[in-house]
Amino acid sequence: MTIKLSALAAKLGLEYTGADRDIAGVNTLEKAGPDDLSFLVNPKYLHQLETTKAGCVLTSGSYAAKVPCALLSENVYMDLARVANVFARPQGCLEGVHTLAFVHPDADVAETATIYPFAFVGEGAVVGSDTVIFAGAYVGEGTVIGKGCILYPNCVVMGGLTLGDNVILQPGAVLGGDGYGYAQTPFGHMKIPQIGTVAVGDDVEIGSNTAIDRAALDTTRIGRGTKIDNLVQIGHNVEIGEHCLIIGQTGIGGSSVIGNGVVLAGQTGVPDNVRIGDGAMVAAQSGILGDVEPGAKLAGSPAIPAKAYFKAVGVCTPKLPELFKRVKNMEKELAALKAAAGVSDE
Amino acid sequence: MTIKLSALAAKLGLEYTGADRDIAGVNTLEKAGPDDLSFLVNPKYLHQLETTKAGCVLTSGSYAAKVPCALLSENVYMDLARVANVFARPQGCLEGVHTLAFVHPDADVAETATIYPFAFVGEGAVVGSDTVIFAGAYVGEGTVIGKGCILYPNCVVMGGLTLGDNVILQPGAVLGGDGYGYAQTPFGHMKIPQIGTVAVGDDVEIGSNTAIDRAALDTTRIGRGTKIDNLVQIGHNVEIGEHCLIIGQTGIGGSSVIGNGVVLAGQTGVPDNVRIGDGAMVAAQSGILGDVEPGAKLAGSPAIPAKAYFKAVGVCTPKLPELFKRVKNMEKELAALKAAAGVSDE
Amino acid sequence: MTIKLSALAAKLGLEYTGADRDIAGVNTLEKAGPDDLSFLVNPKYLHQLETTKAGCVLTSGSYAAKVPCALLSENVYMDLARVANVFARPQGCLEGVHTLAFVHPDADVAETATIYPFAFVGEGAVVGSDTVIFAGAYVGEGTVIGKGCILYPNCVVMGGLTLGDNVILQPGAVLGGDGYGYAQTPFGHMKIPQIGTVAVGDDVEIGSNTAIDRAALDTTRIGRGTKIDNLVQIGHNVEIGEHCLIIGQTGIGGSSVIGNGVVLAGQTGVPDNVRIGDGAMVAAQSGILGDVEPGAKLAGSPAIPAKAYFKAVGVCTPKLPELFKRVKNMEKELAALKAAAGVSDE
Repeated sequence: MTIKLSALAAKLGLEYTGADRDIAGVNTLEKAGPDDLSFLVNPKYLHQLETTKAGCVLTSGSYAAKVPCALLSENVYMDLARVANVFARPQGCLEGVHTLAFVHPDADVAETATIYPFAFVGEGAVVGSDTVIFAGAYVGEGTVIGKGCILYPNCVVMGGLTLGDNVILQPGAVLGGDGYGYAQTPFGHMKIPQIGTVAVGDDVEIGSNTAIDRAALDTTRIGRGTKIDNLVQIGHNVEIGEHCLIIGQTGIGGSSVIGNGVVLAGQTGVPDNVRIGDGAMVAAQSGILGDVEPGAKLAGSPAIPAKAYFKAVGVCTPKLPELFKRVKNMEKELAALKAAAGVSDE
Repeated sequence: MTIKLSALAAKLGLEYTGADRDIAGVNTLEKAGPDDLSFLVNPKYLHQLETTKAGCVLTSGSYAAKVPCALLSENVYMDLARVANVFARPQGCLEGVHTLAFVHPDADVAETATIYPFAFVGEGAVVGSDTVIFAGAYVGEGTVIGKGCILYPNCVVMGGLTLGDNVILQPGAVLGGDGYGYAQTPFGHMKIPQIGTVAVGDDVEIGSNTAIDRAALDTTRIGRGTKIDNLVQIGHNVEIGEHCLIIGQTGIGGSSVIGNGVVLAGQTGVPDNVRIGDGAMVAAQSGILGDVEPGAKLAGSPAIPAKAYFKAVGVCTPKLPELFKRVKNMEKELAALKAAAGVSDE
Repeated sequence: MTIKLSALAAKLGLEYTGADRDIAGVNTLEKAGPDDLSFLVNPKYLHQLETTKAGCVLTSGSYAAKVPCALLSENVYMDLARVANVFARPQGCLEGVHTLAFVHPDADVAETATIYPFAFVGEGAVVGSDTVIFAGAYVGEGTVIGKGCILYPNCVVMGGLTLGDNVILQPGAVLGGDGYGYAQTPFGHMKIPQIGTVAVGDDVEIGSNTAIDRAALDTTRIGRGTKIDNLVQIGHNVEIGEHCLIIGQTGIGGSSVIGNGVVLAGQTGVPDNVRIGDGAMVAAQSGILGDVEPGAKLAGSPAIPAKAYFKAVGVCTPKLPELFKRVKNMEKELAALKAAAGVSDE
């Protein structure tokens, strides 16, 4: 599609500089052509303004003067999202309930919902209006899916779960698999049936092949607006607050409680039964050991305050071989001094 | 469902204190209501006995006196499993072989097995009695699945594999994908066909989106009673013993041999070609470097004995910046003393 | 199947020593029987030549004299791959397009392609000759799949993607799920529509349950001949060069650029927006912090040159408790010397 810059600006309520022109797409400064809109936020890429062929650059005031045509924004990422929405074409190529879908006669599927071939909707399940369930997705018995949700191909929502509105499950995401709970017995590990559920709030997005276990008892909860990346593991009875960012390959052990607005960077490990306070930020590959204060910034495994970590592990640890030499050297010198001073070791 | 406490106690062969009452569910001390049974094992939650609204608490002798109604147990987790079994309702809503399933005419499916729509059972595959194969699950040609197994939605068991009885595969688990094996050639990495298989013992459970590769040659083995959590990676030709616990996001490299009763905590990495002895326990996020003695307790990356790790990395490492200052200070003082003593550096 | 050693040798253009015999399979030295061919590369297993029952051993010159029958090779792993190809039987039991597959009327599927039941091929998708799409696999609208590809069960290739020839997707692999991109707004995290794509070169293999995100804008690229293991996470707009090895559970953050011939060992983390030069090798569980020079060998989290890492973290860190004692001891001695010398602390 192509849209006039003037029309795009009007649609978004933004001003622009330079001459009006056709905009046919969105791309990075490096790769955009004369029909593309590009964007600039990170000063690291400022030098690319000089060489970009982009027809127009979405950016904030100070940078705008550097290009002949700018779309002016006070929150570039937000307006980039809005621009991309104009050019985005949703995934998929079917509408309605396909004859090769399985929809249990006692399921309740909204008229405006789309169910692809090979999708499964179990007994008593509810699928809200405008929700799209792609091929191979599974909705278990009694599960309630809200309005405007997207279940991408081959994701699984086991029975008895609840999803709010506008929830997005990327392909292969699994919600409501059994939690990992066994009793030690003389005959081996006895499975503790996982009779709880999972409840997912509105506007939650869950990444490809992520796994969120059902509670042993009660409910595993994902709060409104929280975004979970790919290949994340959420244990049984975990409670995650609102507007958190849980980044790729992070794992959270059973019954831990994560506050609101928490950021866990990639490959972080959170053990069982800890609490992470609101607004805490944890660096990539950290290993949390215990409760975390609200607003804390941690790094390392075991995790400590990020500044202390980067000083201790980032700066000091690589110098350890040198430190060992310095200490050894001092020991010799000290021994020599003691000898000279006539002090003997007892 | 609701059951009299007296009937529940009789069913489990346990005694109870206090008056008989209706029990309608099981929940945590914090969330249980007057119709719920709760439980207490961990003394960390002892204080919750004072405020819980649970109608009855499953617990061991010493705690039982603190509540008006207790169900008495000598292995609370085991009896919790048995109680949960009373209240558990298995997942699923269909029985028999569905007309939208694909069952190869030369497959051998037991009469009491259940095959959901969109499940695939290949040529020559065998499915044992009472086994349930959910929607979207794949059973390759020649694969033999035992009795009483559950293959949850979208799990994959490639061709030529063997699963024992009562095996549970959580959604999205993949067994028998090709191992990662390439020969270096002048033309790039040449794939070594993975012509081995996977054999899974009785009572094994495998978590959501976990991947267990087929052997290059011979067999990748998972021993009886071993429980594998979500998003675990098991390389080709790995052999895991009986009754192990392999926790979320752990990875085990090719041809490594894990003994019986081993515990690998979350996000642990085990390289290729090492042996881990019976009963070894490895802390979360550890990185194993070589063979591990039976009964060893390790932590860290690279992993060392857990006690030494917590002292060296947990206690000492964060104090390194201070240690560097102390050493620098001593160096100055030492130089001053040497000067005072008339000793010169050569 | 069984083949004469002489016929096998002729087929591969190799010489053999000893008498001709029937070869019925391939196995490890430890497990091979008299009808099996085995192989030896790693001197660690040299002692097994004395006890192996293998009928013949594929190996290089110096080892060949130690066994009565050897198949002589100058690149044992490569010839093992070629031998295994002789004995390999491809997965699967169907041919052609099955009536229970969904193929959009506007898709273009080659006559020699195979589409299993419950596979989905969307509008405008192209499937090349001899390509096999297993049960439950999803090919989105407009996606182009080359010749000779294998899409194993339940893998997902979203719409608008491009795969070259001879690409292998192991079960559950997901290509083209949305990248993880949100704009911070006063109303929470606003999704930035991911309007880019994924392009995968010829001869690429992608492991079970691995996730490769579509670009926010433009293209996520996987270069020709690159082999990606299981449970790997590749962020949006990542560009990976040719002939790389990306090993299990590694994660690569958005927009990072990986050169040619790079090896990232298991559970490595690469952040957003860094460049890793050609031929770099990164040890398991490393955490990259910034750009990496071509040919660098790194280890640790944060990653530093591998030799320095093993000295600092492998050798020195475990000795820290002892070092702290030595320093404390010196401080005491130094204080004593200063006192003896009549030097006072200010």
